[in-house]
Amino acid sequence: MVDYNPKEWVKIIFSIHKADTLRKLFPLLIFVFLYTSAFAYLVLEYWDVGETADLKNLSVLHSLLGFVISLLLVFRTNTAYDRWWEGRKQWGSLVNASRNVAVKLTYLLGETHTEEKLYFQKMIGNYCVALKNHLRKTNFYHEYEHIETFPIQRIGDDSHVPNHLIGLIQQRVFELQRKGVFSAEHILILDYEFRQFTEICGACERIKNSPIPYSYSSFLKKFIIIYCFSLPVGYIFNLHYLIIPFVVFVFYVLASLEVIAEEIEDPFGADANDLPLDRMCETIKRSLREIMTPQQAS
Amino acid sequence: MVDYNPKEWVKIIFSIHKADTLRKLFPLLIFVFLYTSAFAYLVLEYWDVGETADLKNLSVLHSLLGFVISLLLVFRTNTAYDRWWEGRKQWGSLVNASRNVAVKLTYLLGETHTEEKLYFQKMIGNYCVALKNHLRKTNFYHEYEHIETFPIQRIGDDSHVPNHLIGLIQQRVFELQRKGVFSAEHILILDYEFRQFTEICGACERIKNSPIPYSYSSFLKKFIIIYCFSLPVGYIFNLHYLIIPFVVFVFYVLASLEVIAEEIEDPFGADANDLPLDRMCETIKRSLREIMTPQQAS
Amino acid sequence: MVDYNPKEWVKIIFSIHKADTLRKLFPLLIFVFLYTSAFAYLVLEYWDVGETADLKNLSVLHSLLGFVISLLLVFRTNTAYDRWWEGRKQWGSLVNASRNVAVKLTYLLGETHTEEKLYFQKMIGNYCVALKNHLRKTNFYHEYEHIETFPIQRIGDDSHVPNHLIGLIQQRVFELQRKGVFSAEHILILDYEFRQFTEICGACERIKNSPIPYSYSSFLKKFIIIYCFSLPVGYIFNLHYLIIPFVVFVFYVLASLEVIAEEIEDPFGADANDLPLDRMCETIKRSLREIMTPQQAS
Amino acid sequence: MVDYNPKEWVKIIFSIHKADTLRKLFPLLIFVFLYTSAFAYLVLEYWDVGETADLKNLSVLHSLLGFVISLLLVFRTNTAYDRWWEGRKQWGSLVNASRNVAVKLTYLLGETHTEEKLYFQKMIGNYCVALKNHLRKTNFYHEYEHIETFPIQRIGDDSHVPNHLIGLIQQRVFELQRKGVFSAEHILILDYEFRQFTEICGACERIKNSPIPYSYSSFLKKFIIIYCFSLPVGYIFNLHYLIIPFVVFVFYVLASLEVIAEEIEDPFGADANDLPLDRMCETIKRSLREIMTPQQAS
Amino acid sequence: MVDYNPKEWVKIIFSIHKADTLRKLFPLLIFVFLYTSAFAYLVLEYWDVGETADLKNLSVLHSLLGFVISLLLVFRTNTAYDRWWEGRKQWGSLVNASRNVAVKLTYLLGETHTEEKLYFQKMIGNYCVALKNHLRKTNFYHEYEHIETFPIQRIGDDSHVPNHLIGLIQQRVFELQRKGVFSAEHILILDYEFRQFTEICGACERIKNSPIPYSYSSFLKKFIIIYCFSLPVGYIFNLHYLIIPFVVFVFYVLASLEVIAEEIEDPFGADANDLPLDRMCETIKRSLREIMTPQQAS
Repeated sequence: MVDYNPKEWVKIIFSIHKADTLRKLFPLLIFVFLYTSAFAYLVLEYWDVGETADLKNLSVLHSLLGFVISLLLVFRTNTAYDRWWEGRKQWGSLVNASRNVAVKLTYLLGETHTEEKLYFQKMIGNYCVALKNHLRKTNFYHEYEHIETFPIQRIGDDSHVPNHLIGLIQQRVFELQRKGVFSAEHILILDYEFRQFTEICGACERIKNSPIPYSYSSFLKKFIIIYCFSLPVGYIFNLHYLIIPFVVFVFYVLASLEVIAEEIEDPFGADANDLPLDRMCETIKRSLREIMTPQQAS
Repeated sequence: MVDYNPKEWVKIIFSIHKADTLRKLFPLLIFVFLYTSAFAYLVLEYWDVGETADLKNLSVLHSLLGFVISLLLVFRTNTAYDRWWEGRKQWGSLVNASRNVAVKLTYLLGETHTEEKLYFQKMIGNYCVALKNHLRKTNFYHEYEHIETFPIQRIGDDSHVPNHLIGLIQQRVFELQRKGVFSAEHILILDYEFRQFTEICGACERIKNSPIPYSYSSFLKKFIIIYCFSLPVGYIFNLHYLIIPFVVFVFYVLASLEVIAEEIEDPFGADANDLPLDRMCETIKRSLREIMTPQQAS
Repeated sequence: MVDYNPKEWVKIIFSIHKADTLRKLFPLLIFVFLYTSAFAYLVLEYWDVGETADLKNLSVLHSLLGFVISLLLVFRTNTAYDRWWEGRKQWGSLVNASRNVAVKLTYLLGETHTEEKLYFQKMIGNYCVALKNHLRKTNFYHEYEHIETFPIQRIGDDSHVPNHLIGLIQQRVFELQRKGVFSAEHILILDYEFRQFTEICGACERIKNSPIPYSYSSFLKKFIIIYCFSLPVGYIFNLHYLIIPFVVFVFYVLASLEVIAEEIEDPFGADANDLPLDRMCETIKRSLREIMTPQQAS
Repeated sequence: MVDYNPKEWVKIIFSIHKADTLRKLFPLLIFVFLYTSAFAYLVLEYWDVGETADLKNLSVLHSLLGFVISLLLVFRTNTAYDRWWEGRKQWGSLVNASRNVAVKLTYLLGETHTEEKLYFQKMIGNYCVALKNHLRKTNFYHEYEHIETFPIQRIGDDSHVPNHLIGLIQQRVFELQRKGVFSAEHILILDYEFRQFTEICGACERIKNSPIPYSYSSFLKKFIIIYCFSLPVGYIFNLHYLIIPFVVFVFYVLASLEVIAEEIEDPFGADANDLPLDRMCETIKRSLREIMTPQQAS
Repeated sequence: MVDYNPKEWVKIIFSIHKADTLRKLFPLLIFVFLYTSAFAYLVLEYWDVGETADLKNLSVLHSLLGFVISLLLVFRTNTAYDRWWEGRKQWGSLVNASRNVAVKLTYLLGETHTEEKLYFQKMIGNYCVALKNHLRKTNFYHEYEHIETFPIQRIGDDSHVPNHLIGLIQQRVFELQRKGVFSAEHILILDYEFRQFTEICGACERIKNSPIPYSYSSFLKKFIIIYCFSLPVGYIFNLHYLIIPFVVFVFYVLASLEVIAEEIEDPFGADANDLPLDRMCETIKRSLREIMTPQQAS
């Protein structure tokens, strides 16, 4: 995610960040520029087509449909933004759930079960790392904290690591209940927290695996292309060579919206607009350390 | 569901997938093409109607109402998309609930109740299959895992299989409480999970059985048809034969939106845009196996 | 509710169902037709008003405000649809809650308390019927199942029957706890379910009793009328007699949206677009029978 | 709240209810009428300004910005409507929570604790009255039911009466637990209900105390005024004296939307569009009586 | 937050509050004024460019894209408003949660544990202050109430103070359970309340730390600038010197929307439109005092 101050207009307007749609669309914009220039040259200089009112009137198509395309693109962007925001919410909940469970475990386990506390601290941290790796389809073993009963290297690439981890955590909780460390109401409280971990994992998988339906996405792309590539036909006799910046700018606006939507609808990647999952994992780990090993906090 | 990479513009624009609205609308587009061609020929060549300003001015109708029709269609698509997304959420919750309940049952039942574990594992898998079949109004007996106490073949086609299954599962849970295997707080925890199964089933039935109100759908279709079929009247003297691609393209855009909405508003079918229920059932079954029979996971 | 296949375009376009807005608006459309015809005749033939640019330019009013009226109507329809959908959700939840509570009561009461089971089965069914009658302000005594301790005929028309019923049900639950049939955690589980019944009832009453604020509804109707009845003034010199179909069609579109909104915003009536409450009550009763008296299911 | 039948078009269109925006805006409309008349007279008769194309072309401003102002106003109205609806939901929840808690208390307290039942019945009724008074910043002592342990007159005007009441209620609940009347699970059930009372109170306070941000509201008002008062400049040479009804009507439409939004965004007042809090308090009190003192119901 | 009466039109229209966008945008408006004046002077007087239809027709760009820019800005404002409202909800929940937990602690601790009550009263108050300071990245030690076991000065600036505090509170709760002051069901009730504190903190951090994605914000600013700075090109020959107020006003409208959005999307600052966190902290502290030390209330 790009950190920025939204109130710095001048800086934002003149900088061309690598997340900027201008940069992403550059090759396409060049192409549109060349296409429109060629079209304008051929029509105005070479073919010498007489100005026909019919072609001119075709511009009515673009004003009639300009409204639909705008609405569709804006809704598309907002749908994508909703997913991005939901992904953000899920990771925010993960931070919360980690903190809550850490606070509770610390005081439920007390001073005497230091080992257990360390176990849970590491395992919860590992869960977050595992979720991040799961969502990015990577698997960086070095990011995990080493625990004897959890030999991360032995887990195959195709197994569902977060599920495996939460299973181990819950197993330990129920074991501790059997040993009498946790009482019935503690189990209810802890269960509420750990259930959230799986729910967050499921929600993130859903966002990741369900892009907008194919028909919708495909229709929108076709619509933009036909709309922009037929623009010169309708406006050439009104604008002559001014048609070139005109078409390029319209295409820039419409395609930018689609490109922004594509980028933010999957918020778990490592792109510039994506959520800072690495930083969040670090935050969670630091919180866990602060809460569960009080000597470091003081 | 079609798996695709939304960032591959060129591929998406030039491929005509079977889920593409262009393919679905092809017969209708041909019809609109023939209608407009005939109309244009008759008006311009045969009837030799003089250009009257009155008819020309009728085009004001289309710009006045162009806005309403666009808004209605975009909202229609978004309502449909909301259902699709809600259906997706429900099945995501089913995956989650299955995992959660599996993790809990595994450690609550421990090493000693292997048979019970197997029972629950199969029954939860069967529940998901039953829900899929219920929503698609199919009943493929071979998809169910065989359990002695659950003779699937004996269940009639008209009975509500998911309800029947959840009843059997809950019966077993309460039996195990009576036997002292589960304690009071475990019942509360398990109840929370199993309640979700019925809630998911109910929500999916709601999405399936409540299409958008008839008045709305019928009005929209009538509006699109009248709008498009009166387009040539208003624009024929401005565009002459150019009216043909014009009307075809406008119809393509408007009808596509309605067609996309129709397709995605019932997300449980077996169409190209529908949710991959089969794949999800497989995912659930694999998760259940991984969690509940640990020897296979290692 | 009208059952229909949204993909059957031809059938939907040419049929004029009784839920169709065309039928509902027919008298009004005739009136608008007569008004516009009279206006056109008077202006064009009788008064012989010279074509004045001023009147012609008044059409600018309709394009300026065409946008506001469209937006308002589309949002109006969507607000109404949201209520319809929320009503649908509430009844879906009622189906779910009934099933859940039935499953639980069946196994909590076991084989020995057949009478109690029958009592709950009938009372839950009666609750749904009572809610339906309450929302429709009818009271069909014959729809209730007879129970000795619940003499439905003795309840006055003005008392809140659903509340009365849920009170009796909860009374029985607490009695059974006192007798030792239900334990503490069962009470918690059952309470969660029965609380939903009152919540569903309250939500349905809210939807029923709170139409959109009067100012909003009144303003919208006045706006549509003034907008449509001033249309001929602005367009008469552009369209001459073509003004008649023009105004009728614009009015059809705008008024349809308002009519659809009015119909679906109270989804509990017995109109064509309303929710199939009768059918849902039957579904609930059948589910209850299937779950609570297993001999009938086999 | 105005009770009305939304389907009675004729009645609604011709009646000018006191909640009607036409009545509220009357002085402003007169002012706009005088302003536009004076402007038109001065320009057309007195100053004798020649028709300049430049001024005429200024009308492009109004069509360019007509879209933004419409969108803003419609969204403004819908935001306000959302608050109104949320306020309605909260009071609906209050009715529900009162009923639920009454049903439970009745059977938990049984036949023997008549006095306690009466206490809770009165206190819950008083809570609703207190919330109403709190939200309206009034304090009608006569609306409260007299209870010895709750001397309403002694409470100062500045203290938070609903908080005070819920505190007394909870105190009594915990006392009854100590006396052994309520068991642990009953406390959990009752706590869930009483927590809702404070949550409803907080939500209503939030709606009441947070109008839409000042910048937004101030910008919108300035925009409407500049937009409408510059309308005559752009259109005077097209419409001449027709400009007068034109500007008045446009102002009526735009200002109505803002006025409706202002009215419904705080739904707890005593205006015509506001929620019928008095009636709802009566409903709650009657429900409490019916449920908790069964002799009156029969 | 600015307290104001939204119904006072005249006052709002003529006052230029410091939160007014007019004041914030003043330097930019001057710049746009100078730019347009210079452009107009150069084109009309100095360069003496002949009126070319091509340039004139460029205005079609602004009407085609006027719709997209309006939609984008309105959605932008509404997204920002949603965050503002969510922030408001979170702080409303904090007020509620504080009240609820205070009521419960008061009666659970009874008359005998005065010291404990005072401890919780101060700690909950401190939590709210800490959250406020945390969100504003300030740390005013004097705002905290002094407690012996919580030496606020010793906490480093980089530690997460709210987390630290909630940890201490929960520790005390579990200690009191061990001492037998709280029973199991009380722990469940209190846990529900305290969990909310962390959840509110997490949600506020999320709103604070996740501005709208950079691509979106950057694209919108670039779009506004290009749109407004190319306006004079398209309209100069229609409007001549009238272009100056025209462009300034359009820029005022569009930029205002962006500025409002920027202001309200982070509602936790100390700006004029931001939430009154200081006042809310005071409200919470007063509520806590009223509820937990009854002698002061009488």
